[in-house]
Amino acid sequence: MKAILVIADGMADRPIKELNWKTPLEAAHKPSLNRIAKIGICGIIDPIAPGIPPGSDTATLSLLGYDALKVYSGRGALEAVGSGVKILPGDVAFRCNFATVTNNLLVLDRRAGRIANEDAAKLAKSLQKVKLEKSSKVRFIFKNTIQHRAILVLRGTNLSAAVSDSDPETVGKKVLEIQALDNTQKAKYTAKTLNELMQKFHNVLEEHPINKSRVKRKLPPANMILCRGAGTIPRINKLSEIYDVKGVCIAAVPLIRGVCNVAGLKLIDVKGATGTPQTDFMAKAKAVVKALKINDFALLHVKATDVASHDGNVKQKIEMIEKIDQMLGYVLDNVDLNSTCLAVTADHTTSCATRNHEGDPVPVAIASSYVRSDNVSEFDERSCAKGGLNRIRGVDLMPTLMNLLGKTKKFGA
Amino acid sequence: MKAILVIADGMADRPIKELNWKTPLEAAHKPSLNRIAKIGICGIIDPIAPGIPPGSDTATLSLLGYDALKVYSGRGALEAVGSGVKILPGDVAFRCNFATVTNNLLVLDRRAGRIANEDAAKLAKSLQKVKLEKSSKVRFIFKNTIQHRAILVLRGTNLSAAVSDSDPETVGKKVLEIQALDNTQKAKYTAKTLNELMQKFHNVLEEHPINKSRVKRKLPPANMILCRGAGTIPRINKLSEIYDVKGVCIAAVPLIRGVCNVAGLKLIDVKGATGTPQTDFMAKAKAVVKALKINDFALLHVKATDVASHDGNVKQKIEMIEKIDQMLGYVLDNVDLNSTCLAVTADHTTSCATRNHEGDPVPVAIASSYVRSDNVSEFDERSCAKGGLNRIRGVDLMPTLMNLLGKTKKFGA
Repeated sequence: MKAILVIADGMADRPIKELNWKTPLEAAHKPSLNRIAKIGICGIIDPIAPGIPPGSDTATLSLLGYDALKVYSGRGALEAVGSGVKILPGDVAFRCNFATVTNNLLVLDRRAGRIANEDAAKLAKSLQKVKLEKSSKVRFIFKNTIQHRAILVLRGTNLSAAVSDSDPETVGKKVLEIQALDNTQKAKYTAKTLNELMQKFHNVLEEHPINKSRVKRKLPPANMILCRGAGTIPRINKLSEIYDVKGVCIAAVPLIRGVCNVAGLKLIDVKGATGTPQTDFMAKAKAVVKALKINDFALLHVKATDVASHDGNVKQKIEMIEKIDQMLGYVLDNVDLNSTCLAVTADHTTSCATRNHEGDPVPVAIASSYVRSDNVSEFDERSCAKGGLNRIRGVDLMPTLMNLLGKTKKFGA
Repeated sequence: MKAILVIADGMADRPIKELNWKTPLEAAHKPSLNRIAKIGICGIIDPIAPGIPPGSDTATLSLLGYDALKVYSGRGALEAVGSGVKILPGDVAFRCNFATVTNNLLVLDRRAGRIANEDAAKLAKSLQKVKLEKSSKVRFIFKNTIQHRAILVLRGTNLSAAVSDSDPETVGKKVLEIQALDNTQKAKYTAKTLNELMQKFHNVLEEHPINKSRVKRKLPPANMILCRGAGTIPRINKLSEIYDVKGVCIAAVPLIRGVCNVAGLKLIDVKGATGTPQTDFMAKAKAVVKALKINDFALLHVKATDVASHDGNVKQKIEMIEKIDQMLGYVLDNVDLNSTCLAVTADHTTSCATRNHEGDPVPVAIASSYVRSDNVSEFDERSCAKGGLNRIRGVDLMPTLMNLLGKTKKFGA
């Protein structure tokens, strides 16, 4: 028996007035999702705990069977890993933005006009040459990823992730000084090093030919690096060690790739998979079916539903659900449910009304010949709440799947 | 978005033979409760855990989102706070009764004939003058509350709540010597001090003119103080700190007022609210609607259902449920469910048959435009068990409500 876990980011929602108080899932045309619900056993999941809005990182950790409340250690390192930066235990990593600031360090544009990859790469190359003061034993890695996004990794023996952000997260506010968040020497030293680095980065960027050229081209100069989300690698065992399964991850967004990499899943690159509403859904479907031929477990993540929700775009969210449904149609047609469990869920509720992650539970369905199928025949928040799985925690899903694969260890004799 | 949480004390019950195996909730005429169930999302709650009969104190702590199993530190201090006695960290407080005992300290009446407030106040005044032995560094506060009920607070630096009760809780039994419940010096010292105080109280009461007058009036003399429920103040953060909400409590009984006060809710006094079946239900309804205009959260507690249950009075319990229903009718007519969540539950099951708190779950319904309403259209134990919330713990209700208010913090990124 093998398993596919499909996670549609932020797909769950609350009733929406303009949909006559239906949710996007309830309003969408979704024959394949409904077929999975009908064949399978359904339920609702609290990714973390009832009422607690999860991040995509903590939710995915939970859905992979880890107790996020215990093992989560910040977003930065997960995002760095997912961006292909190797992170060692002890490294402290940050998510960064190229930004545009005034002379007084007021933020004008948190994304430096969504700077093109080419410009960002040249700037990053120069930043990597910056020298910390001679006595410093810290090394750093600075890498641009997509557009204005970048990763900063501090490496050394005396570092802590207990430091605040420099990113004020709001246009018009001043860049923040990085502070130690506890009283340890490590945290104070990390904050001091970061402040030094941010100042030196700013000096280099202000004088950089690329930025002078950007000003001439009437583009906002990327004259500041904003950093946030200090994190270390969570200390977790790989899924292959816990369950003796060979697994893969098909996801485009760095954060999810990072979580899966740390969990020991092999990252599969799919051409056309972008993490945006324009992603190639069918390419992902084909990749997962192919991957399952030589693996026991495949996680398939789709970001598009969350993007639409954060934009409050109900129509687009429904379209994305319908594309996911078509993607699942291909999967259903190409796997054998006698030898495969196909599980579908969301990592969290993202409300099109509040445009935020919310703490409401998410629907789940697990289709396979050997599950105790229930009477639920539609995949949505309210229908699944009547299912045979009842209400479980995110951390319980992976053992539930691995149990169907015969991969959970007996406790007792 | 704002929230009202209505807690009907002991409203849940088991099937009752004389009701043709319906519960009082199932037998009552309750159009407003049913309307809340129909509009809302329903479920059942284990206030503490399945099968564990809660006290009203531990249940209310849980329903306010605290892990009662971790933070509960005895009833005495909560009741004292709710009676308007200021309790400091380190104080040990007790619930006391004025009682009637024989010369051999056998209990004749645990309530001294439900002694009138006037007599009790005069006796309490004399007891407050009692001196502990000279070397003692303990101070005490003794305050009568309603009828035979009173509060005793010990204040000092060397005290422990790990002491037993002197109240045998049964007529005909002898007053108990107070014992240390662990091997600490503090517990032994506290027990010794209490035994000294109980003896001195007894001496004062035996000779008191009020008691001599009571005997002449053929009333049982209040010649003994029985104490029980040693407790300290739980160390918890206020709801305003946890969720950034401004909240109030409308409750008549001291214990609930104490819990709410410790949780940081402002106590609102309502004329005619008595904590008895004769309470002014409509005055409470009006008070909660008014309070919500300038607050984010209001807890509305009604004791009458529990009183009827402990008396085994099925008919009265149904009447009380119907009065609560009318009260909720006013609330429903005067709040806007587009901007308000109205949640109704019980703090525990109190069985009219056993006349005790029981560990069966309680029904809950949360009405608001933005909840995932389900097919449940009646508010009772069995109907709500089919609802979209499924089965949650008491401690999960507050995050569930605060999530609807946008007041729970995201965990992760």
